[in-house]
Amino acid sequence: MKGKLRVAMIGGGPGSFIGAVHRIALRMDGHYEMVAGAFSSTHEKCLETARELGISEDRAYQNWRELIDKESILPEDKKVQVIVITTPNHLHAAPTIAALNAGFHVVLDKPLCTSLDEAHAIQHAVEESKGLFCLTHTYTGYPMVKEAKFQVASGALGKVRKIYVEYPQGWLSTLLESEGHTQASWRTDPSKSGKVGAMGDIGTHAFNLAEYVSGHKITEVCAQLNIVVASRALDDDGAVLFKTAEGATGVLMSTQVAAGEENNLKIRVYGENGGLCWEQKDNNTLTVMPLDAPVQLLRTAGAGTSEFSLAHHRVPPGHPEGYLEAFANLYRNFASHIRSLESGNTRNIHLDYPGIEDGVRGMKFIEAIVKNNAGNEKYTAL
Amino acid sequence: MKGKLRVAMIGGGPGSFIGAVHRIALRMDGHYEMVAGAFSSTHEKCLETARELGISEDRAYQNWRELIDKESILPEDKKVQVIVITTPNHLHAAPTIAALNAGFHVVLDKPLCTSLDEAHAIQHAVEESKGLFCLTHTYTGYPMVKEAKFQVASGALGKVRKIYVEYPQGWLSTLLESEGHTQASWRTDPSKSGKVGAMGDIGTHAFNLAEYVSGHKITEVCAQLNIVVASRALDDDGAVLFKTAEGATGVLMSTQVAAGEENNLKIRVYGENGGLCWEQKDNNTLTVMPLDAPVQLLRTAGAGTSEFSLAHHRVPPGHPEGYLEAFANLYRNFASHIRSLESGNTRNIHLDYPGIEDGVRGMKFIEAIVKNNAGNEKYTAL
Amino acid sequence: MKGKLRVAMIGGGPGSFIGAVHRIALRMDGHYEMVAGAFSSTHEKCLETARELGISEDRAYQNWRELIDKESILPEDKKVQVIVITTPNHLHAAPTIAALNAGFHVVLDKPLCTSLDEAHAIQHAVEESKGLFCLTHTYTGYPMVKEAKFQVASGALGKVRKIYVEYPQGWLSTLLESEGHTQASWRTDPSKSGKVGAMGDIGTHAFNLAEYVSGHKITEVCAQLNIVVASRALDDDGAVLFKTAEGATGVLMSTQVAAGEENNLKIRVYGENGGLCWEQKDNNTLTVMPLDAPVQLLRTAGAGTSEFSLAHHRVPPGHPEGYLEAFANLYRNFASHIRSLESGNTRNIHLDYPGIEDGVRGMKFIEAIVKNNAGNEKYTAL
Amino acid sequence: MKGKLRVAMIGGGPGSFIGAVHRIALRMDGHYEMVAGAFSSTHEKCLETARELGISEDRAYQNWRELIDKESILPEDKKVQVIVITTPNHLHAAPTIAALNAGFHVVLDKPLCTSLDEAHAIQHAVEESKGLFCLTHTYTGYPMVKEAKFQVASGALGKVRKIYVEYPQGWLSTLLESEGHTQASWRTDPSKSGKVGAMGDIGTHAFNLAEYVSGHKITEVCAQLNIVVASRALDDDGAVLFKTAEGATGVLMSTQVAAGEENNLKIRVYGENGGLCWEQKDNNTLTVMPLDAPVQLLRTAGAGTSEFSLAHHRVPPGHPEGYLEAFANLYRNFASHIRSLESGNTRNIHLDYPGIEDGVRGMKFIEAIVKNNAGNEKYTAL
Repeated sequence: MKGKLRVAMIGGGPGSFIGAVHRIALRMDGHYEMVAGAFSSTHEKCLETARELGISEDRAYQNWRELIDKESILPEDKKVQVIVITTPNHLHAAPTIAALNAGFHVVLDKPLCTSLDEAHAIQHAVEESKGLFCLTHTYTGYPMVKEAKFQVASGALGKVRKIYVEYPQGWLSTLLESEGHTQASWRTDPSKSGKVGAMGDIGTHAFNLAEYVSGHKITEVCAQLNIVVASRALDDDGAVLFKTAEGATGVLMSTQVAAGEENNLKIRVYGENGGLCWEQKDNNTLTVMPLDAPVQLLRTAGAGTSEFSLAHHRVPPGHPEGYLEAFANLYRNFASHIRSLESGNTRNIHLDYPGIEDGVRGMKFIEAIVKNNAGNEKYTAL
Repeated sequence: MKGKLRVAMIGGGPGSFIGAVHRIALRMDGHYEMVAGAFSSTHEKCLETARELGISEDRAYQNWRELIDKESILPEDKKVQVIVITTPNHLHAAPTIAALNAGFHVVLDKPLCTSLDEAHAIQHAVEESKGLFCLTHTYTGYPMVKEAKFQVASGALGKVRKIYVEYPQGWLSTLLESEGHTQASWRTDPSKSGKVGAMGDIGTHAFNLAEYVSGHKITEVCAQLNIVVASRALDDDGAVLFKTAEGATGVLMSTQVAAGEENNLKIRVYGENGGLCWEQKDNNTLTVMPLDAPVQLLRTAGAGTSEFSLAHHRVPPGHPEGYLEAFANLYRNFASHIRSLESGNTRNIHLDYPGIEDGVRGMKFIEAIVKNNAGNEKYTAL
Repeated sequence: MKGKLRVAMIGGGPGSFIGAVHRIALRMDGHYEMVAGAFSSTHEKCLETARELGISEDRAYQNWRELIDKESILPEDKKVQVIVITTPNHLHAAPTIAALNAGFHVVLDKPLCTSLDEAHAIQHAVEESKGLFCLTHTYTGYPMVKEAKFQVASGALGKVRKIYVEYPQGWLSTLLESEGHTQASWRTDPSKSGKVGAMGDIGTHAFNLAEYVSGHKITEVCAQLNIVVASRALDDDGAVLFKTAEGATGVLMSTQVAAGEENNLKIRVYGENGGLCWEQKDNNTLTVMPLDAPVQLLRTAGAGTSEFSLAHHRVPPGHPEGYLEAFANLYRNFASHIRSLESGNTRNIHLDYPGIEDGVRGMKFIEAIVKNNAGNEKYTAL
Repeated sequence: MKGKLRVAMIGGGPGSFIGAVHRIALRMDGHYEMVAGAFSSTHEKCLETARELGISEDRAYQNWRELIDKESILPEDKKVQVIVITTPNHLHAAPTIAALNAGFHVVLDKPLCTSLDEAHAIQHAVEESKGLFCLTHTYTGYPMVKEAKFQVASGALGKVRKIYVEYPQGWLSTLLESEGHTQASWRTDPSKSGKVGAMGDIGTHAFNLAEYVSGHKITEVCAQLNIVVASRALDDDGAVLFKTAEGATGVLMSTQVAAGEENNLKIRVYGENGGLCWEQKDNNTLTVMPLDAPVQLLRTAGAGTSEFSLAHHRVPPGHPEGYLEAFANLYRNFASHIRSLESGNTRNIHLDYPGIEDGVRGMKFIEAIVKNNAGNEKYTAL
């Protein structure tokens, strides 16, 4: 190790939920040090966050453009190496592209952006940049999600036939955005969130998880998007019947009006020889259901788990790990990739993290469900 | 009590799963006595079953027509009062109509029949008969399903917005019907099962449960029916997006190829003020999720449950009741209805059981999803 | 089958909980028919119960002595074959001995009686009688308890080292007996319940389950018996450290003042190579924990279960069975034993049910814990 | 915030489990920076760990004495403020006392030490020092353990009557210590672990949790300590019946030979008006069981939780937090206490963490159970 990777954050000021999460995640394993930021729309708030975080005031920038410009001309051993972007969706594409163009590594919060055109522009920037790119589809960082992917990929279930993925939340059951709730406000505002609400915020997570675990590509969708809470501008609920290129079918359910639900992401995959189930509520367990044998409970770091999942935990079996550790796994693997790039090592199992392809597919999914929901055709291709 | 109700059974001979279940259910509370039957397609097998059950051989009939004819002319105090029909689906309509026309009370296994035309014919027979009619949508007999219905009806959740119902099984993951498996054979055979496979066998249960608990009527469906196991003739899997007359939407999932799953019926209903969840695997618990208060676990016979569910259990809280008790609740309520009819009492909470309306709605559901699945329109009306 | 076994019941009149349970259990599989009874201390109440049950009034006896005397002299094809005794504990020994002496088969509710002397007298009567004897330690009737016993006996866990058994209830958290609660009144009254309260009512169940599943014999106990609710006469709570003849140790916890608990019997057994856990709340699951392999969930009638447990279920996997079915398994096996005795068949796996040895051991356990609790020695031998 | 607190670690070199855990915990919230260490018994290994952690070699000390001596004479703005001690038990007292005497704040891994005499010596040092002291009884850091303590303290359960606490592990089911397993070796070695094995390693956690949640003081114990795996020198299993000063009784079970168990700490407390249950396996749920109302599930950061538990979480409800976050809560509160000491603030809810009193009580518990187990008296006073 050559010391910690120097990090700047764009967004993540007062009132941000996900900014604080990124900061814990990047601190957890000691691979990063945050030294700069453009945390807020006002410089005053930015300075406030900088002071809380022990960042020197001269690196608390007025905005993301200034951050990229000024960091770019700092000496190599001082300037940041990684830029973390946690702004609302409509402010994803521009800073991401600028940072990549300036050669920084970028960690971007999901969803990728607000349109497929933007997605392709970011993809182009990634391909041209010497910087690496990570999109924080957090849930792929859970050890038992890794194990689920491994079980499917290893053929334990046989050919995959059926995929159910669901992401019910209840926090938008009332018109929170009318009460000055920061998170609710931008996530339900088309000018900041994009063409979709719940489907972009959590539906893309479910979509990403389904493709990640199953290894399948979703190719056709039949969608029902609903605005349940009156006077809301974007979908707060929806469901999608889908087909995959590899011959499976499935259902995706995503809602933010399931009153009483917390954040209950769940995936089930069934193949010819068995099924599996993972849910965030009990994230350290992967239930494996063979066709003709007793159900098995695989546990984080426990007996019978693969090297792939074992590479993504920190404490012995029975010491629960959770959401922050899953998030930190993305950061740890991203750091490993940066280090191995510097040292010339090739990609290994510790380097698995979501990237630009995941982001582009998420945007294709959004475009397809929006189109399908608006029209009368049964299925729409991605 | 004026002694036990005398019962005859049509179907339920060797190899029948559901025949034995009906017999346990009707024995459980001591309201019925089985004294006659036409259990099988051959008289030899019928006699075999009769001997096992201690039924006298002269009331072990060659076929259902003989049973109805001969029982009809027995003295009032000897002839059966209730006829239970547990034959495959294509043999539901004829004996049901004949038994009703002859004035017997009829308990019929679900689904009602194999077409909407048959359904209307049975409905007509029910309306004209002095006999009562029960369709064994078993799951509505669970105390905590009753409680779920009560919670919704009482307004505890506010206006219902979202309904998820699912019924995954795994037992048809292989081509069992090619191996001489009795149950698999008729259930996957269009000439015996009707226009649908899994959707008729278990999808109608899910549909019935959704309407029963929510109190809503499903009016539009968008369906995906799949034949997953090659060379099977009927759907073994499917999913339906739906809308209700009362303004909710929902998803119904029903599959018999979820390898590793047993029989995991589950329903979730969300309203403006909270949600609830019930699943058969933990049938004595109803999870109630208020919008802004801790989740509550209502338990069969436990604190905080309504008279409606309390009327449907047998033992104190913590003594698990199950599928057979739920089934027996249908029989007990049907007996109560017969008794109250005789005594002139009006319908009360002990008399709640599924009937002809449930059956007709199930057939409308099947017709609509078959039509929708075959065509290209997004939604089809029931 | 030669027709149903004719049954009389002693006890089980209005206000009895367990009488009704016995009646459902013996009806369930169609092997018994109740034709006589001495249900209550008053003849009026006895007649009331007889009428409810459809029993002819001339066989609704004034008391148990009359029942035994008069049934004894009825013709062989009319008199009852089995006598079920569900009276409070102090009324167990006398009718049981009289019934056995008269040659009847006897089903007795637990605990066996109120002292070891009585226990030995009953044991003597069982040994001398041509009648068979069943003591309804219900919990051994659960399919997954059978499976647990099989797993241990088959050596799957290796040598047993540790046994934890617990039975927490909360219903006696207040002084219910002062409010005219029938069940609470006799169970907390030394003149009716015996030397112990909770330890006799549910502690003996826990003790029986521990010995049944582990196959070990408990030989030494160190007990703490508590009267938690002021002015109660008998223990309502207690815990026991124990050692077994085969070299294991364990803990037994039994309480009726765990406010908020229903009836949560649970057993865990650990051996050299793994452990297992069963709890009544999820009675259809047996959790098997191998030392170095993933946890397995064995399910009633599911894959990987033994013939021993498969012989004790009624419906396919995923259709929950419960307490009444477990109870009915005792009755079914007892009927099988009676039948096989008549036909000369030897004992087989369908004949497993608790008997006199279980009862005597339960009384030894009670005597030992009472002695240990009263004195200062650390361990007392059974 | 005046910058991060500078930390040195004693112990935690290669092969240490808990050293790595402490490092993650102290990094998580950004309050600490590790700048020095005496990680291992050899300087070579110490340097190796220092390099991995990015600590400069001149502060990678040969041993703990050198660390304390040399750090003591560094300038105020450079020298460490907090010393974290993660050595085996027999190396707790000496460095702790030395560090406290030198005025450093100390975080010590549990158990406090190996005898009550040592405990009193440490207690004296704490009282005399200007440094603060934290003993990492981790489990008190879980938000839902805080909530459990709050529920009891607020009177929600009424007077506490019964306490069950258990801590089953299975990892010492075989003689791991004979296979060169670092953790197993010192934990089963009386010269390093002290007078007890499992009871010191995890039994003291269970004891601490019981007193923390209930608010009761355990005053009498009746213990059974077992050496289950042959040729082991210390107890690997045990159970304790206990009484509290406040009038409750309870059972403590602690084992490391429950083959197949991970790390399943669980506590249940019952009072006059209800009970509660928390288990580490589902650490974000607190089950509250009122006497006459439905069970409630309180969830980390969820509806109905107190400010006391809300002060100890990082992400919204439904984003699972776990063991590392609980551990980090101890570090965060300790930092808050140090900061508030500097700023003159008084103790507040964010400052709750285990200290010297917890440590001394743990040693008293060990002395009492060892004495009780060796003798014949039923109860021994703490």
